Amino acid sequence: MQIVIIGSGNVAFHLAKAFVLNKIPLVQIFGRNEKELKKISGELNILYSTENLAKADLYIICVSDNSVEDVSKMITENNCLVAHTSGSLPKEILSGNYRKGSFYPLQTFSRSKALDYLKIPFFIEAENDDDRKILFNIASKISENVMESTPEKRKYIHLTAVFACNFVNHLFARAKEISDSQEIPFDYFLPLIDETVQKIYEIDPKSAQTGPAVRNDKRVLELHEQLLSGESLEIYKTMNHSIQKMYEL
Amino acid sequence: MQIVIIGSGNVAFHLAKAFVLNKIPLVQIFGRNEKELKKISGELNILYSTENLAKADLYIICVSDNSVEDVSKMITENNCLVAHTSGSLPKEILSGNYRKGSFYPLQTFSRSKALDYLKIPFFIEAENDDDRKILFNIASKISENVMESTPEKRKYIHLTAVFACNFVNHLFARAKEISDSQEIPFDYFLPLIDETVQKIYEIDPKSAQTGPAVRNDKRVLELHEQLLSGESLEIYKTMNHSIQKMYEL
Repeated sequence: MQIVIIGSGNVAFHLAKAFVLNKIPLVQIFGRNEKELKKISGELNILYSTENLAKADLYIICVSDNSVEDVSKMITENNCLVAHTSGSLPKEILSGNYRKGSFYPLQTFSRSKALDYLKIPFFIEAENDDDRKILFNIASKISENVMESTPEKRKYIHLTAVFACNFVNHLFARAKEISDSQEIPFDYFLPLIDETVQKIYEIDPKSAQTGPAVRNDKRVLELHEQLLSGESLEIYKTMNHSIQKMYEL
Repeated sequence: MQIVIIGSGNVAFHLAKAFVLNKIPLVQIFGRNEKELKKISGELNILYSTENLAKADLYIICVSDNSVEDVSKMITENNCLVAHTSGSLPKEILSGNYRKGSFYPLQTFSRSKALDYLKIPFFIEAENDDDRKILFNIASKISENVMESTPEKRKYIHLTAVFACNFVNHLFARAKEISDSQEIPFDYFLPLIDETVQKIYEIDPKSAQTGPAVRNDKRVLELHEQLLSGESLEIYKTMNHSIQKMYEL
């Protein structure tokens, strides 16, 4: 089986790395950004091109959602399987006469951060059992957590991930903005953040809620609002409102 | 030095436990809730009372912010030090002729969840150097991370903690609500959540941001809004707005 990864961003890099580490042969990594491709190619010892897409049995498209359709048109082969890694696009966005699939790794990828690929859940969709099996087998070489999915389910998986990852990270960014403004080292908060996450391994997050909103501590809520402005104030109000609604306060 | 802990909630329990584990003598745990006090007393082998507050050199008040003032009036000793554990109350809320202080552990406490007390940052305030030393020494027996604070600084520490802990947990609760609604096991998201937190040990959270908002992926943002309603929709809009403001999108 000849495989090509298309893209040069964080997902492409980590997927290519996981392939190499697990001895899944890659014939090429293809993309537009020569500088990035060169780096990936050098680090992982795989061929790259910005111009001539290699012939393959499977193409995995790891580009931003906005580019998936355009990129998919560059594949002129018919007898091949093409899958994208998007959390929210249908596989039908892929535009060509080939078989289509989805190969969605549920993880947040930063270029500079090593990952335990074994723990990454992969969600697979395909047009037929043979293709499902192909994608399933490849993902299973990387991860111990591979599942079939549906377009509808994948939308909600991605949405949940936005809350549990993207928004959580943004809260960290806003929290750090507040502590930085008072020259309080953000490191002080790391044990608290660790514990916040450790808790949900043992307790349902709804039962684990603490803080002024769930205690309906109006004095603290008002005090905090006076310390905040702009987007952080908006977040403060929205989150407290949502907490109080959840607990019917 | 005779010490009494006042309160029977999560903070009182964990502080009492940390005292016992580190052989800091407690003469009593005092509160209103006999059932809880009995449990703590039995588990930690310390005396409790709901009626007769023992004589002590140091009282640590671990009750909800709303009750600190009332509870502080029950201490009729003059030659003693009284400290509360609140993140946001000034030490002057303590109402009596004794010396006043603040003994603030920066952590989220759930009754059923064991904690590594050594990692909990403690923030200390007192009226004079001797009292500061007393509180500092006690906290240092529990934790390797004890610092002096000021009322102003403590307010911002607490506010930062609300963002980094209370709001993060609420995002987990809302995320789980979404995944539960589609019968997607929330466990799938734990590696992603772990990685989201691991990242900020290495990368500034502002640099670590991923997701549709920071990519300004309008198609996905609109799709997600259609899947949401109520408080989760409000959170979705507020967080995305804040992300896009932070990155000037």
